[in-house]
Amino acid sequence: MNALPHGALSLSSLDEQILQPGVKGLPITEPLRQGAIGVQGWKLLHGDTSFPVAVLKTAALQHNLDWMRDFCARHGVQLSPHGKTTMSPQLFGAQLANGAWGITLANAIQVQVAHRFGVRRVLLANQLVARSDVRAVLRLLHDDPDFECVVLADSLAGVARLAEEAAAQGLTRALPVLVELGLSGKRAGCRTPEEAMTVARALAGAPGLALAGFEGYEGLISSDDHAADLRGVEHFIDRLCALASEADDEGLFGTAEILVSAGGSSYFDLVANGLRKLHGLSRPLRLILRSGCYLTSDHGTYKRDLEKLDAREGVAPGQGLRPALEIWSVVQSRPEPGLAILTMGKRDASHDTGLPVPLAFHRPGPGAPRALPSGCAIVKMNDQHAYLRLPAGDPTDDLLAVGDLVGCGISHPCTTFDRWPLLLAVDEDYTVRFALNTFF
Amino acid sequence: MNALPHGALSLSSLDEQILQPGVKGLPITEPLRQGAIGVQGWKLLHGDTSFPVAVLKTAALQHNLDWMRDFCARHGVQLSPHGKTTMSPQLFGAQLANGAWGITLANAIQVQVAHRFGVRRVLLANQLVARSDVRAVLRLLHDDPDFECVVLADSLAGVARLAEEAAAQGLTRALPVLVELGLSGKRAGCRTPEEAMTVARALAGAPGLALAGFEGYEGLISSDDHAADLRGVEHFIDRLCALASEADDEGLFGTAEILVSAGGSSYFDLVANGLRKLHGLSRPLRLILRSGCYLTSDHGTYKRDLEKLDAREGVAPGQGLRPALEIWSVVQSRPEPGLAILTMGKRDASHDTGLPVPLAFHRPGPGAPRALPSGCAIVKMNDQHAYLRLPAGDPTDDLLAVGDLVGCGISHPCTTFDRWPLLLAVDEDYTVRFALNTFF
Repeated sequence: MNALPHGALSLSSLDEQILQPGVKGLPITEPLRQGAIGVQGWKLLHGDTSFPVAVLKTAALQHNLDWMRDFCARHGVQLSPHGKTTMSPQLFGAQLANGAWGITLANAIQVQVAHRFGVRRVLLANQLVARSDVRAVLRLLHDDPDFECVVLADSLAGVARLAEEAAAQGLTRALPVLVELGLSGKRAGCRTPEEAMTVARALAGAPGLALAGFEGYEGLISSDDHAADLRGVEHFIDRLCALASEADDEGLFGTAEILVSAGGSSYFDLVANGLRKLHGLSRPLRLILRSGCYLTSDHGTYKRDLEKLDAREGVAPGQGLRPALEIWSVVQSRPEPGLAILTMGKRDASHDTGLPVPLAFHRPGPGAPRALPSGCAIVKMNDQHAYLRLPAGDPTDDLLAVGDLVGCGISHPCTTFDRWPLLLAVDEDYTVRFALNTFF
Repeated sequence: MNALPHGALSLSSLDEQILQPGVKGLPITEPLRQGAIGVQGWKLLHGDTSFPVAVLKTAALQHNLDWMRDFCARHGVQLSPHGKTTMSPQLFGAQLANGAWGITLANAIQVQVAHRFGVRRVLLANQLVARSDVRAVLRLLHDDPDFECVVLADSLAGVARLAEEAAAQGLTRALPVLVELGLSGKRAGCRTPEEAMTVARALAGAPGLALAGFEGYEGLISSDDHAADLRGVEHFIDRLCALASEADDEGLFGTAEILVSAGGSSYFDLVANGLRKLHGLSRPLRLILRSGCYLTSDHGTYKRDLEKLDAREGVAPGQGLRPALEIWSVVQSRPEPGLAILTMGKRDASHDTGLPVPLAFHRPGPGAPRALPSGCAIVKMNDQHAYLRLPAGDPTDDLLAVGDLVGCGISHPCTTFDRWPLLLAVDEDYTVRFALNTFF
């Protein structure tokens, strides 16, 4: 299995920075140049890192990069992965080097971070509203002719705000804008095609702005009725495509190509299949998926969603996207039978769509970690602690001792990445190869 | 009302750092020296900051610092505030300048951060277990004779690990250790006084270690039966005190004074009253509360707990600790009647003990914000969005428009601070005075 090489991810400005003691996961007691992490020879399984520590498995990352590139090529779509998931410049670089069209982001601050580290094409998948935030994005477009950014609007008020700031900032190229189609009772976005067309017409007529396409986020469709959810996703994508056709018929587009985008990390197959039905427009079409969590997958919500996606796509078990992100911590206390307290908590692992999933344990030293029996579960987390319940009568209850390492998968990469300013990239044997930064 | 002055919080190494565009809350498009933030004249209510933005109200902070200092003086206890709440060196400095005995922390990485920024006395309120983490703390003790750190143990295995590392590192002064008393079914800590005494005796006999006292965390006592909880807290503190007496009778203490510590942010009055009953020991006693959330309080869980504490202590309404931390965001979309989508999400505000509490709204410009009616509520958050429900038929539903600012209180400061590398300190009129850093 090919591991993602450090060279592909290296950013010299970050490799040259001097890390001070006090960065989560790093066992340093003296300042250390970040680029020198790989030559330290730290082995997580020997207890060399600080704990808790967040690790990214390079082989799984490379597999997922390749898998998604092939998926998009096969389905005739392109990827602008949601960068808010990781906010890691090195991972943005790996995604772009692997064929991504651009990076999707959620707000102006994230756009500034991405631009600072070399990203030159951004899909800002949100309404850009606050004056200082509009100005921050327009300033980048003004100062850097190589920078491209497309933003969303879902109301006439939003269009008016963008037009006003574009005029005030003296932008010499039109700001491309996608109209967001939403879902009743859900998040932002026009609730009806009629509303969406009204916003599209306003964009077509607004000086300094250009209608570039339509956008939606089908990932909010999630209920107890999975079959209905799937139909809902297909219907939503059909509506999005119909809007593009209607706006094209009216001659509203102001950009050289028409951009249509949807696709989180649960239904991107249905999105790709739906978008590809769009054809016969007057300008070239660009169909963009925006999945962010494909890069690491997880051991929770996305694992379950991706197993369903694999079944729909005929992907053989084990050949789909692989979980790449784990949190390792230490058994801090065995205060009573059946309970181990771990040195990780809400500050270290996501808890919004399920608690971490204990995978393996290891007594620091040589050898491979052993799987934890399936009855083991994290049942609660405090800010800095996790409660690992061990099945009554299970031999693990005797085996797991103070000081043992426990590796956990997580559910929801976005809310785990944002708890780590630095993650460690590891080989299959958990030797630390290099570091990845995040900017939240 | 006195505001906390910037000078009291200034750390020149942080004031001198150059902030790059892309830091949450900062509206900058060029690099800016952190110490120059206060002269920018940014007014949040004019929409000058980036959004979302986390603000600390300086007058409330100063009030809370004064209030807690007076409380401790009146109750004959000292404060080692839990620094994990804020992980802000400037706030550590303000707490120490205001009479705190030391800073409490949760793990070795946090200790390294605090030491780097000048903290010289730490209560590490956790078992220190991982080898690299034990070594990191011992290294600070070895290299810096002015640095003091006391840690916890709750098992013979833990004592053995500490003793082994203390010997390996050649520590010339004994490492002071508190025995943790726990609660059945809860987190770490010895479950019975007998277990705690066994650990205490092991510490007394371990080379390189010294029994310094006893510690517990009563904040885990929380059920639907509040009266029973209060009795449980009192009983727990009585047991903690009895352990100190018993260990003193046996001559187990190895430090010049005996340290007994408990106290989160919900019951610290009961803890103070309980600890003060301890007397007649052979050495000077140091009674330490560890509340972290007193500094900012909140509009959720702690607000409710502190109202009960105020009632127990006879504090007049409005004279207790005040909420100091707010998150302001922008109405990004009004996609349907009764719903406003805000530009803040799980990445910006805690959601583990209650969703944010909408307080006020304001159209950017002069004037004061207006209170939101009590029927308004944040009903859901995604990673980057909040769903603000407005009561049907409420005039606010017509008033609140795209681009309006909404200020929210939060529930649980710890899990909000850790989402902000930088918070802005503001006056009563939300003019930005200076910045505070966090290191998570």
